[in-house]
Amino acid sequence: MAKVSFSVKGDNVNATRIDLNARQFKLVVDEPANLGGTDDGANPVEYLLAGLAGCLNVVGHTVAKEMGIKINKLSVEVSGDLNPARFMGQSNAERAGFQNIETVLHVDTDADKATLKEWLEKVEDRCPVNDNLSNTTPVSVKLG
Amino acid sequence: MAKVSFSVKGDNVNATRIDLNARQFKLVVDEPANLGGTDDGANPVEYLLAGLAGCLNVVGHTVAKEMGIKINKLSVEVSGDLNPARFMGQSNAERAGFQNIETVLHVDTDADKATLKEWLEKVEDRCPVNDNLSNTTPVSVKLG
Repeated sequence: MAKVSFSVKGDNVNATRIDLNARQFKLVVDEPANLGGTDDGANPVEYLLAGLAGCLNVVGHTVAKEMGIKINKLSVEVSGDLNPARFMGQSNAERAGFQNIETVLHVDTDADKATLKEWLEKVEDRCPVNDNLSNTTPVSVKLG
Repeated sequence: MAKVSFSVKGDNVNATRIDLNARQFKLVVDEPANLGGTDDGANPVEYLLAGLAGCLNVVGHTVAKEMGIKINKLSVEVSGDLNPARFMGQSNAERAGFQNIETVLHVDTDADKATLKEWLEKVEDRCPVNDNLSNTTPVSVKLG
């Protein structure tokens, strides 16, 4: 299959806010006031969690359709903890990002437990965002 | 330093769209029509890229302030390629997610090249989203 490219691009508005374009969509990323921001949008790590939640929804429905499972409703909660010390330049003792990400899926379905377990394993394996977080991804950052 | 928690939560609207809450912000994640979606919002992997772009902006300005660099404008482009074959259940030959993520920062500043290089190394090290992508992150997905 041919590879598919995705991109976002934009300019900063201030030290914490950046307005990005992803195709026709405008995405405002900012920080809350308690992290020094202007609080005009969700923050970068919330965008990351939203990407995971959205991905699990799409892949969840794709796999369910293949398996003949009817999902009446899917609710997703994604959360994570991080220590801001490294980001703030105070300590390198811990990693900068989330130390763990916990996801809970509430699936309204008639499928039995064993079937749902099989479904979940496939969803985890096939979810692009889960792959990029769970495994290493080469990220290059260059000056243009 | 105390850990900080972040979370998003929401319900699916259809097989591709989910409406999430991140604090007071509503985030609509969908897929474009050519990926079977209703195209009401950026897609999951675009959210992931937006998180990285937003993070580089925040950390970029934080580090610049510490180093006494004045950034007049920061423009960020983030892009990546993925093969949808695994996500679509057609082949396990390649990973599900981005095979690489390329980021270009256009920095309008008076700082010299050597200073900017030092700045960039610090930004990469201290950016939470870059950390979560570049290194493995434990992700648990459970049925609630």
